[in-house]
Amino acid sequence: MDWITGVRQGQPRAIAQAITRVEADTTAAQAVIRALHAETGQAHIVGITGPPGSGKSSLVNELAKTYRRREARVGIIAIDPSSPFTGGALLGDRVRMRDLAGDAGVFVRSMASRGSLGGLSRSAAAAIRVLDAAGFDLILVETVGAGQAEIDIANTAHTTVVLDAPGLGDDIQSIKAGILEIADILVVNKADQPGVGRAVKSLEMMLQLGRETAAATGYDGHHAVLAFGTRGDEPEQATPVSGRWDVPLLQTVATTGQGVAELAEVIMDHRRYLQSSGEWASREWARSRDEIDELLRERFMVLLATTVPEGERAWLIRAVVERQIDPYAAADRLFSVAAAAIL
Amino acid sequence: MDWITGVRQGQPRAIAQAITRVEADTTAAQAVIRALHAETGQAHIVGITGPPGSGKSSLVNELAKTYRRREARVGIIAIDPSSPFTGGALLGDRVRMRDLAGDAGVFVRSMASRGSLGGLSRSAAAAIRVLDAAGFDLILVETVGAGQAEIDIANTAHTTVVLDAPGLGDDIQSIKAGILEIADILVVNKADQPGVGRAVKSLEMMLQLGRETAAATGYDGHHAVLAFGTRGDEPEQATPVSGRWDVPLLQTVATTGQGVAELAEVIMDHRRYLQSSGEWASREWARSRDEIDELLRERFMVLLATTVPEGERAWLIRAVVERQIDPYAAADRLFSVAAAAIL
Repeated sequence: MDWITGVRQGQPRAIAQAITRVEADTTAAQAVIRALHAETGQAHIVGITGPPGSGKSSLVNELAKTYRRREARVGIIAIDPSSPFTGGALLGDRVRMRDLAGDAGVFVRSMASRGSLGGLSRSAAAAIRVLDAAGFDLILVETVGAGQAEIDIANTAHTTVVLDAPGLGDDIQSIKAGILEIADILVVNKADQPGVGRAVKSLEMMLQLGRETAAATGYDGHHAVLAFGTRGDEPEQATPVSGRWDVPLLQTVATTGQGVAELAEVIMDHRRYLQSSGEWASREWARSRDEIDELLRERFMVLLATTVPEGERAWLIRAVVERQIDPYAAADRLFSVAAAAIL
Repeated sequence: MDWITGVRQGQPRAIAQAITRVEADTTAAQAVIRALHAETGQAHIVGITGPPGSGKSSLVNELAKTYRRREARVGIIAIDPSSPFTGGALLGDRVRMRDLAGDAGVFVRSMASRGSLGGLSRSAAAAIRVLDAAGFDLILVETVGAGQAEIDIANTAHTTVVLDAPGLGDDIQSIKAGILEIADILVVNKADQPGVGRAVKSLEMMLQLGRETAAATGYDGHHAVLAFGTRGDEPEQATPVSGRWDVPLLQTVATTGQGVAELAEVIMDHRRYLQSSGEWASREWARSRDEIDELLRERFMVLLATTVPEGERAWLIRAVVERQIDPYAAADRLFSVAAAAIL
């Protein structure tokens, strides 16, 4: 278990190897997490997301440089959609490495989003844990696109920064609406380009609408993904905090660095807010709960696969396909078979 | 259960009400699916996806009009990212309705993608089933963005059409790579705009690369999401079909209708191919299997919530948060408690 010592000491090769293990298969991920869990919990995890064209990669690079100047160690995980057609991450590493190369206080890794359901959150969450155990102060997680990945990341991150930029099209506006609700901090990047006033105004209107909705419904936009069906089992410090953190709206020009130092500061403010309000602890709690739930779901499916005879299952699926029974009836039946096998 | 008769008879109001029920909660969705499952299985489900700016909505409208001229009944489900900030679907219905209004052979519905994990696929899949039972010949499912939603839809659809357009940015190229692998048919829309030659060439290169990868690895790009861990239990007709359907690349201009009739024909060709190759049946099988698995996972979590004392669970989560035990150990423990409770 020499690599564990290497990760703890922050050795780049050991870290890279641990993440590769974690990506490769779930058994390895389990071993890594079990070995490193006790060392984790210190890093500030910051998700950076936004529609295509908003300049996420540039801003992440500038943020990393800014934090490096303040002596913070920074890990970057860039999640790229990938495909067997391209063989993995398209952007990311190479460009970035040129910029931040040779600095042992920065670790950059691109991860593919392809794979099985939940695969993204699984391997990304495990990689975050490796960087956390390796002692990075900040872990910046960049996601491209809009969808489940962003919601997963928002549930993993302490702070979620949502980017926008002037001059993006209508489809982009639609995507933006889907991720606005997960924002702790809003940024209009490319603020030196035409249309910045309109972009800021439109976000301000959405923020205002969101505040009114929150006031009317008590919905604060966070923790949208619930796993166990109830939320009554949360710790006492998870009192509602809506309205106490007023989502700030910043302007940046990542290519020149304009506004980036201020953004870095606001991210630190959010950390302080999370800690003083108790929300840091309640997000940790929710994250642990979701992770345990996911492990339980998997274990049950493994149990099912080993207890239900294959022929029985195939026969039930065929009956559903042929419209003899409905899927709920099939699930009832399989559940009984599994339960009987446990007994 | 009057609405069931209404759905079976294709009454728009009954269909709309059934979909609203399905979106509202899972108990209602269960009742709808149980009641309608036997009537489903006839519709050709076509997923239409592509990066922002590729012109999906226009193309879906033109396709619907083309099929209407051939007397086919067409259902459209547009999945929009949404948010409490905007209160639901942003695009979709209103624009579309103007175009296709007053035609009882078309049913259009926008659905929000927000909500719990798996919520999109759940309610969209249930809505597809409602339209299937209502006798629509084709169901066009349009997704905005790129991510898990697209993979879910590809697993639900018989035919997946992936759109591209000239002149999209680098981030868009990256998104495109992530969804190319799910394409049965590729379309370069906006083919009257500059850069169309380059867009076609780049897709042809990716297709060629994909063919070589498939030849080398046996990976055909489909059924990427596996649920049960093994695939040995598939029906006999699910013989590998890689290479037999050569993904065609078409050019369209949705705004003028150019190339749309040809696309409509190629979609029909794909249906005939699926049926003659046995892949229609094997996709039905995989879909039913995944759905049953999802129901089983849920049932187990419900069982867990009712058998494990809340205090026990909260205590274990806290121990993970405080790094006393790791999440796997907590899952082990909860699993044992649940198993003991069943016994």
